[in-house]
Amino acid sequence: MRQSQLFTHTLKESPKDEVSLNAQLLIRGGYIYKEMAGVYSFLPLGLRVLNKIEGIIREEMNAIGGTEMRTSVFQNKEVWEKSNRWDDNIVNNWFKTKLKNGTEVGLSFTNEEAYSNILKQYINSYKDLPVYPYDFKTIFRNEARSKSGIFRSREFYWKALYSFSKDETEHNEFYEKAKQAYQNIFKRAGIGDLTYLTFASGGSFSKFSHEFQTLTEAGEDIIYVDEKKGIAVNKEVNTDEVLKDLGLNKKNLVEKKAVEVGNIFSLGTKFSDPFDLKYTNKEGKEELVVMGSYGIGLGRLMGTIVEVLADDRGIIWPETVAPYKVHLIDLRKKQDDKLYQILQNDKIEVIYDDREISAGIKLKDADLIGIPYRLVLSDKLGDKVELKMRNEDNIKVYSIEEVIEILKK
Amino acid sequence: MRQSQLFTHTLKESPKDEVSLNAQLLIRGGYIYKEMAGVYSFLPLGLRVLNKIEGIIREEMNAIGGTEMRTSVFQNKEVWEKSNRWDDNIVNNWFKTKLKNGTEVGLSFTNEEAYSNILKQYINSYKDLPVYPYDFKTIFRNEARSKSGIFRSREFYWKALYSFSKDETEHNEFYEKAKQAYQNIFKRAGIGDLTYLTFASGGSFSKFSHEFQTLTEAGEDIIYVDEKKGIAVNKEVNTDEVLKDLGLNKKNLVEKKAVEVGNIFSLGTKFSDPFDLKYTNKEGKEELVVMGSYGIGLGRLMGTIVEVLADDRGIIWPETVAPYKVHLIDLRKKQDDKLYQILQNDKIEVIYDDREISAGIKLKDADLIGIPYRLVLSDKLGDKVELKMRNEDNIKVYSIEEVIEILKK
Repeated sequence: MRQSQLFTHTLKESPKDEVSLNAQLLIRGGYIYKEMAGVYSFLPLGLRVLNKIEGIIREEMNAIGGTEMRTSVFQNKEVWEKSNRWDDNIVNNWFKTKLKNGTEVGLSFTNEEAYSNILKQYINSYKDLPVYPYDFKTIFRNEARSKSGIFRSREFYWKALYSFSKDETEHNEFYEKAKQAYQNIFKRAGIGDLTYLTFASGGSFSKFSHEFQTLTEAGEDIIYVDEKKGIAVNKEVNTDEVLKDLGLNKKNLVEKKAVEVGNIFSLGTKFSDPFDLKYTNKEGKEELVVMGSYGIGLGRLMGTIVEVLADDRGIIWPETVAPYKVHLIDLRKKQDDKLYQILQNDKIEVIYDDREISAGIKLKDADLIGIPYRLVLSDKLGDKVELKMRNEDNIKVYSIEEVIEILKK
Repeated sequence: MRQSQLFTHTLKESPKDEVSLNAQLLIRGGYIYKEMAGVYSFLPLGLRVLNKIEGIIREEMNAIGGTEMRTSVFQNKEVWEKSNRWDDNIVNNWFKTKLKNGTEVGLSFTNEEAYSNILKQYINSYKDLPVYPYDFKTIFRNEARSKSGIFRSREFYWKALYSFSKDETEHNEFYEKAKQAYQNIFKRAGIGDLTYLTFASGGSFSKFSHEFQTLTEAGEDIIYVDEKKGIAVNKEVNTDEVLKDLGLNKKNLVEKKAVEVGNIFSLGTKFSDPFDLKYTNKEGKEELVVMGSYGIGLGRLMGTIVEVLADDRGIIWPETVAPYKVHLIDLRKKQDDKLYQILQNDKIEVIYDDREISAGIKLKDADLIGIPYRLVLSDKLGDKVELKMRNEDNIKVYSIEEVIEILKK
């Protein structure tokens, strides 16, 4: 991509009402546009990051047997009445709207009901189980306040997988796989070191649910981390009994602020019961399906990466989710496309700053935008090229051949 | 994909209130699930088709310089008041909802306002133009009735590109490219022969807009086709004056029912004016940006392909949009994975019916599901395999090597 053809450019300021660092940097870098509090559009660079994150999550979900589908945003009142979650007094963050004929419809804020209802049509026998359908879709939650940028927005892009298993044993087996897949996702997205498997309250069907909490002062959650063991407990379950249960010692726990980047939850028969989601087992007897839920907000994950890795010059993307791998900056009096063409031919993702503006602005913009590999061409370098990693300070000079070798690795 | 692992299966019946052929077949085949009138979820097979269609459209949009982004569903009242399209008395198919604090928000039904508003932040100089941003997103329209399956749904998945040009000349140049790109899309999607470039009314900034109308009795539009010239006029502009203008002879026109699968529209300064979307030209003078709009509903396109190509046994997908290229059906007493593995190793997209059910059901299901290449393994064939195209009647027998060669082409 030629930067001259990208319609966005960096901004000196973000909107005055934008108090969160993640949204400030993403707005200034040309990644997102603030439509209103808690509602953002994803500009070309931002969509590329979102797509990279989506690709990682999709690979991990497919690897554990996930099957992708896409359920509707509009939700049917009758379906939600089955699980008793239609009433605004029970679920207080619904967005609802009306058809011409006055029928109320809800805007999807989660997927348990839609999935249980669809699967009811297809599951009959033990042969039909287990199944692990999932969705990437836009979700709507009527948050009273929304001041954390893309950490907590009113409209957000979300992955939800639901597991449908024959019994607890089959469920637990998958649950452990999903736990590992989630850890892979956060590791691949570059925040593995800061992200803790966190025990949280479990509801009526299991002692615990599991959150994936990333340490950041911008987080809204309080967790207690055992750094040696690499696990944490959420404030709500930080009791002597639970700690004993988990083999944790109060003395080793450190209180930290964190943001929940994912969560997994055993649902038991909480939804299969009201939806009468049953199968016939090998003995010909009807049994309720055992369910689990596995969610990740992609925008929140993107915001978390920005929040925890950025420095005072701007964003620092891990290579795996960066909109481009290379930022090629031409500071020569006579710019040419040669290296840009070579990179493109070698299928190295590159954004090429071919704009006719000052060197200072180009370098400052590159820091703000945060692409991992910065290549600079300048008249004083002759045929050579300067390579700097966004997350390092040293600059090295290479021949074109050498730098291509490095980038191809 | 092993069919035994796909949670959907074919259905004998579609819901009683479903009167449209496209939705009936797609529901029975396990492609979509009807949530309510005009609202469908896309099941795994359906999402694969949608993704194929999306891939074709993306390629064609990128080829003419498009830049993808993703604007929000929630729309800001203040933005829409600029173009005077917020009022329900002016736009009668809005869905609206409310934030906790009582603020009304709209659900996106089109993108002119959101795009004009975002671009206003970025366009300053003639150097910033032209730009061609586009979006794939879910769109909501409060249709009074919705009986045409996925031809006209209340929630649908949509591509919209907007062109922002310096002047009419630059606009017209792009408009012609877009026209060609649209023709490529419908050709690649397998309905090129049935799809006519159709002149329709143009509004205040151009004499005509252009629709792409696909002939089908299920269509809601009436068009007048000149089959020799390969163009048509919409009912609304079928006047002596227009025909003369276009060099068409009334005698050569045939009245047909059709469905509008895409449309392109010159907007002139209709939106740049209220949004004060101006740029400074080379002479330092401010000029209004000239806009165009280019839309395609992906679900409608999918429904149209089903509607016009299906036979009485079921769906017939063109290879380009089929969920899989090959339907491998194992009718042998002792099934094995050998051919399935070979196909997968050769990166040929295959769905493998490994279910333990009767040959009759497998073959009937394959016809309904409509994958282009059907391969049958049976005991009477020995090491050979039977190949039948879904849109042909003859069956041929090949060795495995021969059939792989054919499929690799």
